[in-house]
Amino acid sequence: MDKLQLFRELMKANFLKWDHLASDQDRKIPQPPIESDLPKYYQEGEIIELPGITNEIIVKKNIFLVLNDRMSRRKYNKQALTLEELSFLLWATQAVKRIRGKYASTVRNVPSAGARHPFETYLAIHRVHGLKRGVYRYLALSHQLIFLFDHENLELEMTKIALDQEFVGDSAVTFIWSCVPYRGEWKYYISAHKSMLIDVGHLCQNLYLACEAIGCGTCAVAAYDQYMVDEFLNLDGDENFVIYLASVGRIDE
Amino acid sequence: MDKLQLFRELMKANFLKWDHLASDQDRKIPQPPIESDLPKYYQEGEIIELPGITNEIIVKKNIFLVLNDRMSRRKYNKQALTLEELSFLLWATQAVKRIRGKYASTVRNVPSAGARHPFETYLAIHRVHGLKRGVYRYLALSHQLIFLFDHENLELEMTKIALDQEFVGDSAVTFIWSCVPYRGEWKYYISAHKSMLIDVGHLCQNLYLACEAIGCGTCAVAAYDQYMVDEFLNLDGDENFVIYLASVGRIDE
Repeated sequence: MDKLQLFRELMKANFLKWDHLASDQDRKIPQPPIESDLPKYYQEGEIIELPGITNEIIVKKNIFLVLNDRMSRRKYNKQALTLEELSFLLWATQAVKRIRGKYASTVRNVPSAGARHPFETYLAIHRVHGLKRGVYRYLALSHQLIFLFDHENLELEMTKIALDQEFVGDSAVTFIWSCVPYRGEWKYYISAHKSMLIDVGHLCQNLYLACEAIGCGTCAVAAYDQYMVDEFLNLDGDENFVIYLASVGRIDE
Repeated sequence: MDKLQLFRELMKANFLKWDHLASDQDRKIPQPPIESDLPKYYQEGEIIELPGITNEIIVKKNIFLVLNDRMSRRKYNKQALTLEELSFLLWATQAVKRIRGKYASTVRNVPSAGARHPFETYLAIHRVHGLKRGVYRYLALSHQLIFLFDHENLELEMTKIALDQEFVGDSAVTFIWSCVPYRGEWKYYISAHKSMLIDVGHLCQNLYLACEAIGCGTCAVAAYDQYMVDEFLNLDGDENFVIYLASVGRIDE
């Protein structure tokens, strides 16, 4: 089968074809953690409590207008986001609202196949009030950020990661979602991958709409340097790797 | 490389790895149509003009509440949707708002990599006021429906397609999105498939939110019988195949 044909096959539902293959869940192997551990050296990093979610920062409340006006926005002004705004965007995309079920499933503002939510959110923060510049990870269970590291040319580095798309470096913050594939594979084995890609689309659409609601713009980025960004974030590129990015900034109306 | 490893590779950005491979766009081959033709025998079918989009049907206007309250809903009451409501859901997910660019790109309420929008929307309609039961296709360029066929056990057939998930047969209407992969491949060749899966997640999240706004519920369905549904819709399963489903119905509050 040639590569193109194989990739088309992967876009199809393979639940029946691979139904005879047991997943680790079928084998009674305990589920993986619902949030990735922090590597040891990060635990000395700074933890930032994110402010609670408030309706008050929403400037465009009407769902009809939000749906209608949304577009991919690549032109940002130099204004910073507030911490309340960043908190709202993280809540809309990945915050854990509760845990439920016979095995632990997280309830978030987006759906995920089997409620596996196999993602972690990293942020390249260029301009957010109250936060120093640098790379952070979002802790979805506790709605906190943890500072990971800074880079002397963070904006330039992010532009290079995005294959020279300069609007990424111009953004106030870039969301970088990584995938922990075993969280999906534990339940669905080799039928997991299609759904994990769809799921990152679900959450990115919420980022689009949440940005539109607070006077910001975003643009999803699928064209990036996989090796460079995984290395930048210290991800192993196998059990955890970047899957999608989106730049966010304030826009002139 | 074993299958699981290969599927993980497919979730990564391969733009650099395959950059040397020319796409049909690079080769100056004309782009495929932005909407699939109707097979000849359908052209005798009935065309239904969808009503214009109106804010008035929205019962939950506030974007904050819509984002917060959304969940996968599998329990529907027996009430029908109105044609205005169906029109709104189709607008939110796939309507073409305009065409632009040096080669024709469609602008819709959802983003798609390279604005390729490689999808068609089919509907299994069980209960929509003013429409007879049956299977329809949405014409996104003209915001119309075309009646394709009825089936004497449509509800049961849809449940079987969804691998016996009965809420699909209980729904008022089931959205069935097919993928026309060449629309993406024309521009991105073998880097297209990851983004096409993400893109169907974007549009399905809009369906979730649009449903929440009008007092309906939806549940995305990734577990379905690929062969059965493609045959049901007369899709060839190669140049056009089903990629995702979502059942929609009115809910009790």
